[in-house]
Amino acid sequence: MNNTTETPVTVIGLGRMGQALASTFLKAGHPTTVWNRTASKADQLVAEGALLAPTVSDALKSGSLTIVCVTDYQAMHRLLGADDIELDGMTLVNLTSGDSAQAREAAQWAEQRGARYLDGAIMAIPPAIGTAEATILHSGPQADFEAHKATLDALGTVTYLGADHGLASLYDVAGLAMMWSVLNAWLQGTALLRTAGVDAVTYAPFAQQIAAGVAEWLPRHAEQVDSSSFPAEVASLETHVRSMAHLIEESEAVGVNTELPKLIKAMADRAIAAGHGGEQYSVLIEEFSQPRND
Amino acid sequence: MNNTTETPVTVIGLGRMGQALASTFLKAGHPTTVWNRTASKADQLVAEGALLAPTVSDALKSGSLTIVCVTDYQAMHRLLGADDIELDGMTLVNLTSGDSAQAREAAQWAEQRGARYLDGAIMAIPPAIGTAEATILHSGPQADFEAHKATLDALGTVTYLGADHGLASLYDVAGLAMMWSVLNAWLQGTALLRTAGVDAVTYAPFAQQIAAGVAEWLPRHAEQVDSSSFPAEVASLETHVRSMAHLIEESEAVGVNTELPKLIKAMADRAIAAGHGGEQYSVLIEEFSQPRND
Ligand SMILES: NC(=O)c1ccc[n+]([C@@H]2O[C@H](COP(=O)([O-])OP(=O)(O)OC[C@H]3O[C@@H](n4cnc5c(N)ncnc54)[C@H](OP(=O)(O)O)[C@@H]3O)[C@@H](O)[C@H]2O)c1
Ligand SMILES: NC(=O)c1ccc[n+]([C@@H]2O[C@H](COP(=O)([O-])OP(=O)(O)OC[C@H]3O[C@@H](n4cnc5c(N)ncnc54)[C@H](OP(=O)(O)O)[C@@H]3O)[C@@H](O)[C@H]2O)c1
Repeated sequence: MNNTTETPVTVIGLGRMGQALASTFLKAGHPTTVWNRTASKADQLVAEGALLAPTVSDALKSGSLTIVCVTDYQAMHRLLGADDIELDGMTLVNLTSGDSAQAREAAQWAEQRGARYLDGAIMAIPPAIGTAEATILHSGPQADFEAHKATLDALGTVTYLGADHGLASLYDVAGLAMMWSVLNAWLQGTALLRTAGVDAVTYAPFAQQIAAGVAEWLPRHAEQVDSSSFPAEVASLETHVRSMAHLIEESEAVGVNTELPKLIKAMADRAIAAGHGGEQYSVLIEEFSQPRND
Repeated sequence: MNNTTETPVTVIGLGRMGQALASTFLKAGHPTTVWNRTASKADQLVAEGALLAPTVSDALKSGSLTIVCVTDYQAMHRLLGADDIELDGMTLVNLTSGDSAQAREAAQWAEQRGARYLDGAIMAIPPAIGTAEATILHSGPQADFEAHKATLDALGTVTYLGADHGLASLYDVAGLAMMWSVLNAWLQGTALLRTAGVDAVTYAPFAQQIAAGVAEWLPRHAEQVDSSSFPAEVASLETHVRSMAHLIEESEAVGVNTELPKLIKAMADRAIAAGHGGEQYSVLIEEFSQPRND
């Protein structure tokens, strides 16, 4: 540890994630000040070299960069909203999970208090913090990100998304939707294959290969979305829907769940009903972009 | 073209896919006999060197390996089911799309007629036939597959799945479920990000990276499924569900479709209601493995 050359940092909120963040900063040699509502959660960190501040105000005063990681935005506002909390000139990096509107509101609030504000989202579990597997998304003014990137880099793969403070939350939930969707499709396939006595480990590499292969098409499909032009270069939606019916029939026949297959087909059926049967799959962006109330 | 050394092959059914198959065999130097209900669809192939058989019976007699690729199994049975059709000693490779039960029935039927039978599924569009991108799945007796693998290899990436004739259909729909799920999750994310002015092409590489990254976890998750033991090594289902609620709230707040987010959460909620909240995501195999009627 070399406390003299690394930037001091403050971590507010020492739940499972906050503890991992503070511990990682300490290991990277940053003088680290911590604060938590339940002070005992700082014990291990103090043993590792952290300085426990007696109040939130004291924690903020110990350096110019403060990471906040508490349950939700409400908790953050309760902690930092009081009039006697001095934020002027501070940089707050809020790694608390929330939505894009909360992030944009928090940015305005912080700005009014004279603070620089970056919103972040952690796409990792606490044990991964400090490794390249931990993706940490940031949005807000680029200069503020650049000013602290070297410090934040200690936490994992630190990514800057853009000036709009809502981007970190949006990318976060979008990425999670992808994660759950890959897992669910794999589970659907695993359930189907198990009816024929195929082990999950036997099927998994096939699912892995398809997922990775399809992922490679996304940039090309994205060009169609951006140009709002969906020629059926590869296959038409009508061709897809015939196979979707096979998926449902097969799932019914072998007695596995059909909810995901039926949702897949319902979205495509609707796009066909809207006149897009001869277009490419990515025309479904029109279905995904509108709320459905029925 | 070297018609003297390559194995002769017969293709029955010259729709868009059958034409691509026959044309590819011709290019690979196989003496190729073709037949189609609508004979004119053979014109181009005859120009490329194919022999057009006057009847299905004649087509079958011209070699020991016959590929069938028609609309559905019913069409295949109509074509080959007549008593005067001689199948004894033939090998049929049926690349017609269908379900696992139809494949197993067709195998029994072919066996009764003295034929060897492989069931197949084409995971590709016609223009991809003959390239490595065309994955062609086969199931049935391994010896019959091995006997013709060198010929079938001309069609693309030819894969053998196992003796159960139903496997090609099952892997096919399972793989398609993965394809549509990756595309849908990407569209959900794209719809979310577009509300913040982020182009689809800007978001696509992020979605691609998540999909490929999650795909790498599948073999490890599969071990849990096979051992029916789901310790929360990475994260508990309850932790996931909190983020799923964020995804729904965010989708509602920005006004995009919430059907996929809601299905994702509904499956997890049910597993939690069944007492699995403290277990790993792969415990959802229990939800995916049972039909749901309500
Ligand atoms: N854990 C993960 O795997 C993970 C992954 C990605 C993102 N995140 C996000 O990281 C954030 C923290 O998660 P976590 O896992 O560390 O949660 P946690 O273990 O439940 O800790 C919650 C933290 O928030 C504090 N807190 C809550 N309400 C408060 C209030 N009203 N006033 C002051 N402090 C309050 C808690 O203080 P006390 O200790 O006094 O209760 C504690 O420090 C969440 O937004 C979560 O979504 C977590
Ligand atoms: N095209 C693709 O992208 C694709 C991809 C993967 C799998 N497949 C599968 O490949 C198979 C063929 O698809 P395709 O695209 O070639 O379809 P297609 O262009 O519609 O051709 C259908 C073929 O089936 C024949 N047929 C239909 N009913 C018949 C009957 N009762 N008797 C005799 N012949 C009959 C047709 O003969 P006529 O010409 O006389 O009508 C034609 O040869 C399907 O199972 C499809 O699911 C296709």
